[in-house]
Amino acid sequence: MLPRGRPRALGAAALLLLLLLIGFFLLGGDLECARRARGGPGSFPCALTPRIPPDGRPRGAAALDRHPQTDRGAHNRSDCARRGRCRCLPSARPALVLTEICQPQCLPLPQLLHVAIVCAGHNTSRDVITLVKSLLFYRKNPLHLHLVTDAVARNILETLFHTWMVPAVRVSFYDADELKAGALAPLLLPSLPPTPSSQGMGFMPCPSHPQPQVSWIPNKHYSGLYGLMKLVLPGALPPDLARVIVLDTDVTFASDIAELWASLLTFLPQAAPSCPPLPDEQVIGLVENQSDWYLGNLWRNHKPWPALGRGFNTGVILLWLDRLRQAGWEQMWRLTATQELLTLPATSLADQDIFNAVIKGHPALVQPLPCVWNVQLSDHTLAERCYLEAADIKVIHWNSPKKLRVKNKHVEFFRNLYLTFLEYDGNLLRRELFGCPSPRPPEAEQLQQALAQLSEEDACFEFRQQQLTVHRVHITFLPHEPPPPRPHDVTLVAQLSMDRLQMLEALCRHWPGPMSLALYLTDAEAQQFLRFVEASEVLSARQDVAYHVVYREGPLYPINQIRNVALAQALTPYVFLSDIDFLPAYSLYDYLRASIEQLELGSRRKAALVVPAFETLHYQFSFPTSKADLLALLDAGSVYTFRYHEWPRGHTPTDYARWREAQAPYRVQWAVDYEPYVVVPRDCPRYDPRFVGFGWNKVAHIMELDAQEYEFLVLPEAFTIHLPHTPSLDISRFRSSTAYRDCLQALKDEFLQDLSRHYGAAALKYLTALQQP
Amino acid sequence: MLPRGRPRALGAAALLLLLLLIGFFLLGGDLECARRARGGPGSFPCALTPRIPPDGRPRGAAALDRHPQTDRGAHNRSDCARRGRCRCLPSARPALVLTEICQPQCLPLPQLLHVAIVCAGHNTSRDVITLVKSLLFYRKNPLHLHLVTDAVARNILETLFHTWMVPAVRVSFYDADELKAGALAPLLLPSLPPTPSSQGMGFMPCPSHPQPQVSWIPNKHYSGLYGLMKLVLPGALPPDLARVIVLDTDVTFASDIAELWASLLTFLPQAAPSCPPLPDEQVIGLVENQSDWYLGNLWRNHKPWPALGRGFNTGVILLWLDRLRQAGWEQMWRLTATQELLTLPATSLADQDIFNAVIKGHPALVQPLPCVWNVQLSDHTLAERCYLEAADIKVIHWNSPKKLRVKNKHVEFFRNLYLTFLEYDGNLLRRELFGCPSPRPPEAEQLQQALAQLSEEDACFEFRQQQLTVHRVHITFLPHEPPPPRPHDVTLVAQLSMDRLQMLEALCRHWPGPMSLALYLTDAEAQQFLRFVEASEVLSARQDVAYHVVYREGPLYPINQIRNVALAQALTPYVFLSDIDFLPAYSLYDYLRASIEQLELGSRRKAALVVPAFETLHYQFSFPTSKADLLALLDAGSVYTFRYHEWPRGHTPTDYARWREAQAPYRVQWAVDYEPYVVVPRDCPRYDPRFVGFGWNKVAHIMELDAQEYEFLVLPEAFTIHLPHTPSLDISRFRSSTAYRDCLQALKDEFLQDLSRHYGAAALKYLTALQQP
Repeated sequence: MLPRGRPRALGAAALLLLLLLIGFFLLGGDLECARRARGGPGSFPCALTPRIPPDGRPRGAAALDRHPQTDRGAHNRSDCARRGRCRCLPSARPALVLTEICQPQCLPLPQLLHVAIVCAGHNTSRDVITLVKSLLFYRKNPLHLHLVTDAVARNILETLFHTWMVPAVRVSFYDADELKAGALAPLLLPSLPPTPSSQGMGFMPCPSHPQPQVSWIPNKHYSGLYGLMKLVLPGALPPDLARVIVLDTDVTFASDIAELWASLLTFLPQAAPSCPPLPDEQVIGLVENQSDWYLGNLWRNHKPWPALGRGFNTGVILLWLDRLRQAGWEQMWRLTATQELLTLPATSLADQDIFNAVIKGHPALVQPLPCVWNVQLSDHTLAERCYLEAADIKVIHWNSPKKLRVKNKHVEFFRNLYLTFLEYDGNLLRRELFGCPSPRPPEAEQLQQALAQLSEEDACFEFRQQQLTVHRVHITFLPHEPPPPRPHDVTLVAQLSMDRLQMLEALCRHWPGPMSLALYLTDAEAQQFLRFVEASEVLSARQDVAYHVVYREGPLYPINQIRNVALAQALTPYVFLSDIDFLPAYSLYDYLRASIEQLELGSRRKAALVVPAFETLHYQFSFPTSKADLLALLDAGSVYTFRYHEWPRGHTPTDYARWREAQAPYRVQWAVDYEPYVVVPRDCPRYDPRFVGFGWNKVAHIMELDAQEYEFLVLPEAFTIHLPHTPSLDISRFRSSTAYRDCLQALKDEFLQDLSRHYGAAALKYLTALQQP
Repeated sequence: MLPRGRPRALGAAALLLLLLLIGFFLLGGDLECARRARGGPGSFPCALTPRIPPDGRPRGAAALDRHPQTDRGAHNRSDCARRGRCRCLPSARPALVLTEICQPQCLPLPQLLHVAIVCAGHNTSRDVITLVKSLLFYRKNPLHLHLVTDAVARNILETLFHTWMVPAVRVSFYDADELKAGALAPLLLPSLPPTPSSQGMGFMPCPSHPQPQVSWIPNKHYSGLYGLMKLVLPGALPPDLARVIVLDTDVTFASDIAELWASLLTFLPQAAPSCPPLPDEQVIGLVENQSDWYLGNLWRNHKPWPALGRGFNTGVILLWLDRLRQAGWEQMWRLTATQELLTLPATSLADQDIFNAVIKGHPALVQPLPCVWNVQLSDHTLAERCYLEAADIKVIHWNSPKKLRVKNKHVEFFRNLYLTFLEYDGNLLRRELFGCPSPRPPEAEQLQQALAQLSEEDACFEFRQQQLTVHRVHITFLPHEPPPPRPHDVTLVAQLSMDRLQMLEALCRHWPGPMSLALYLTDAEAQQFLRFVEASEVLSARQDVAYHVVYREGPLYPINQIRNVALAQALTPYVFLSDIDFLPAYSLYDYLRASIEQLELGSRRKAALVVPAFETLHYQFSFPTSKADLLALLDAGSVYTFRYHEWPRGHTPTDYARWREAQAPYRVQWAVDYEPYVVVPRDCPRYDPRFVGFGWNKVAHIMELDAQEYEFLVLPEAFTIHLPHTPSLDISRFRSSTAYRDCLQALKDEFLQDLSRHYGAAALKYLTALQQP
């Protein structure tokens, strides 16, 4: 514990040591209680009400430990207790003990398990989702996730969990930025003299507005300040939350987390609430660090933070929160950190250094966990000693900055476990839990009822089922910088699936402005997409393109639901509603912004600016750089107006002849089947989600714009060109199936009825127009 | 046990009962041994050498139970024994016992586990793969699969396991058709008088050439005769195989099969080898049947086969084979079946009826297993009693003919577990086992070495890695009828991925002959493909189209490896090597066969018949019905010669001008970059697998045909037309990446060197030709 090196710091250190000893004494507390005989698990000599009753179910302060749904009435509770179901769990003894005797713990079911994770940014949010998938795959208990996030991660994860609708999972968010730099000054900062209040090491009540902070700690670890936030969890989590498992975002579960939770029950007993805690009461569960880092012999002058032996790894932590709070954890770690920072310039391994330093001073705090609960795959890992002997690997920890590229001769094995969850279809995790009731979120319940009301006899059953499907949505799947606020800015909005990835580079070259693109993908495809972007210089250079993944489910392509995700995530005042097979004129982005400004759209009129659409049939194609160029190609037959051969009426109202000559924007009237590509304000009507698969998905949207009295203004210099592609599966189905065409007709009719209901007599014109041959 | 109904059968039944009693007496055997005191598990009063020694490792006759790799030397064995590793396993008591106390069994690791599955046909082969994926996902032990298959399933599964290369998995095949109708007559057939030999119920040595049979048993169950084959496994499996787990193809594991294997250790003890078995020795482990079927009260006059209470379900069976053989199992079940068939017309539930009838007569044979090991999801299942109480579901059994469409309010839960493995990426199961060594198959070992020799510094590392990748191959993924042998028949050979599924219907309309199509898919995509075919009338009507799935792995498209799979599976003497974006002339199939016959290709000359290639740029296109039609479209500019705008040299040597006028086949000469679509004998050279991604994959093949002195003969009436599609990802990469183009050049150079090495001076012409500008 003596500070190493730097003799000039010895004086300060001696002072600190003295303070520490005083603190220790205070921590030890009431001498009467300190004299208590130590009992084995289950004996609580000083306690009036044991915190962990014999049935293993916490009461009182540990209320949050319970699953609220199973606690609704005494009947339910007693019913569960009466059944006395329990699961066999191996003992929490280290697996390295070869003569291990199997002594299972019995964990009553269902118990709500609490998991806390610190998460910031786009990339880490993806990691958390993989971790959560592995958790959910093996879990059999309700889970409450406590996510400490920055604004980016919160936005992503809130949307994800809201659309995921996993039964028996609750999610709470905590603001990481508040924790990072709260108002409380660090205790005993070397530059500050100790004040009376900051010396209090005894029993500090949990602050009602927790204001701990970590940003004062110099840190060299790649996880940054977020890594340090695990230290402040006892203060940041709800005061009545008694126990929690804290996980790094780079761990993967290979077993049921309930087995780990059960280890908490093996912690040495605590004092009664009226007594200060026993000095050697266990409050933190950790696995030994599987490297020689803390032995301090890795290189000459290698000075790690102090630790017991190899120290402990903090990728997986069991925290007995109420005991920690009572023990004055906040003060304990701050004092230790401050003291160590007198001689060490910064933490090297973030929170882990501080946890280890605290444990070095208070070894009895820690309950060592079996190595299999945190198999560490860093570069110089000693994990092989653990996993080659262990029958079962429970948690893998990718604790090298190289992650899956770490050098390890068994990396393929671990990689495959990780990829299992990375690519696992998250929809399959929407399964309910057996045991006690595992209620779905209310939205999921409504949805279930709506689905149950569908008749399988209905010829359009598949269409209606697809419309009702709520797709998991992962917004800003990749790092993204929101565009600066500009009053006339336009975001290109489009949707695509895997077979159109090759359009993205060209699109980026043609549209230098912000884009909001929704991708309809499976979980596995989302990873392919990620690799595709990372391999592309063009794509990885663009931070203003937001990619939103809508996860595939169901047989029909929910085109309008996907478009609505892209539209909802556009952040500029205007949006250009495009399709992925089109490349806009190089100048379009600038031209649109100028036109919006010039036409004073924001203030003066509700307009949809029409971008005339063309098409080429050639794979290799020299894109026109001006309207004159385009007209020359048109005259030469290298370019046609869009769908000239197959479906000219979709764009006839644009009036291409007039456009040839036009110098100024001109107004055109809606007509049947009109489906131009338009620029509209971001708050325009959404696409109607009933249109899934092929047909009427854009026609209906344009009709609704017209019903809302948007003017259609054709821009004289704007154009966009469609490139050749394989016909879609849905168009093939439309052509080959009468049932498909009949359903589309039924959906059209229902849409028109809804239109009449909404817009009254004004909508009659659509019915009339459509009835004409 | 008294036969119900039909009083006229009573006499025969009484006779049989007498025989049965005699048999029972013989079965009981040696009275000396019968008087032995019954001990608990672990006591072997009559045995000189207990079969299950205290360390739980079988010896002697159970040699096959051991993993051969860990038995190579005494050192290895003792090393494993010394380590004494064991895993905690919950006890095998029924989970319905609510007051269950957790008493784990310790299973020594690694132990080779044996699993037997009966499998016939294309669809069941797919089911088996899903089952095996679930087994492999949770297993931690080496596995030996004993697959009783028909020829179709064997062909599929042999190829699959060969290319899958899962470490620590051995597969043995047994001929189901041999077992179905062997030479042995059934015992005591009602129409046959009992013969002296067929009355022997005592100790029959296992026949050295087992010839049991089941085809004499009338059976109404949907599984057909294959279901009954589980009865003959004790005779069909190797005589030294002591224990096995028998699984139906419609079960899914949700836990480690080792836990089930451990239940075998809890069976009541057996006699010493010199003694006949105890009459109440347990030899079969089964879960109770979770329906009221065997209670016989489902409808008026419902007459099920006899059973103990609800009887047992045979979807999951533990068989103690050596004990069964000693007990004269073969005779026992034949006698019972024959007797019951006097009063019952047929089995309703195949083998399960007979197992239950035998157990009714010999209740001590059975060790009841916890219900969670066979959660039966049939229509009127009582499984809810099991799974709502159980903490852990271990095995799901889809024992309704409706399978996933079964009516069950929790079906979503079970469906999601099933889909997990249906869609699981089987490549991830190639992971090694920890514990004792888990050797890979020799091919996998060689591959590993080759991969290890690649340098990550090599600019073409990705290409070379992709070339070396062995893809899992599932041939004839869907039901397929091989074409009848015809000397001039032609199979259309092509490959595709998901984005070209929409071509299949049109292709089927254009090509009425056999096709061999390889699909490059993920496991999840393979299921989408299956649904696509099932939903298409055109596709599901065609039994002469063979679909072979090549499972995706790696970033580059291994186009030539995929083509080679399709080519290898073509079963006609000739193949038309096409691409999926082409539609052949309607008459092409007939015309090609006529041309092959006319040109006497088989006997007279080694030729490649060139089918001239055209293209249309339009999505909707009226396909020409004759050469004259085509020429008219060509003149009108609706059709071009293939790649006329982008890459005319690929087809220039075909000489389209000559083709316009040609009345007879004409010979053309190879030239640089020639890549026509050709008809060749099935034994033509394979495509060079080094060409992955875009470029030279077909050019190199045509060059090799030329090097082997194939004549290129252009057919005057043949044509095929390319439809528009999205440019491939690989062509985009080729265009945008210098490194990609450089690698392709390196691969070309290496190919030409190999060509020179193979064909000597004759191959110089290619080098010379390519060096010209």
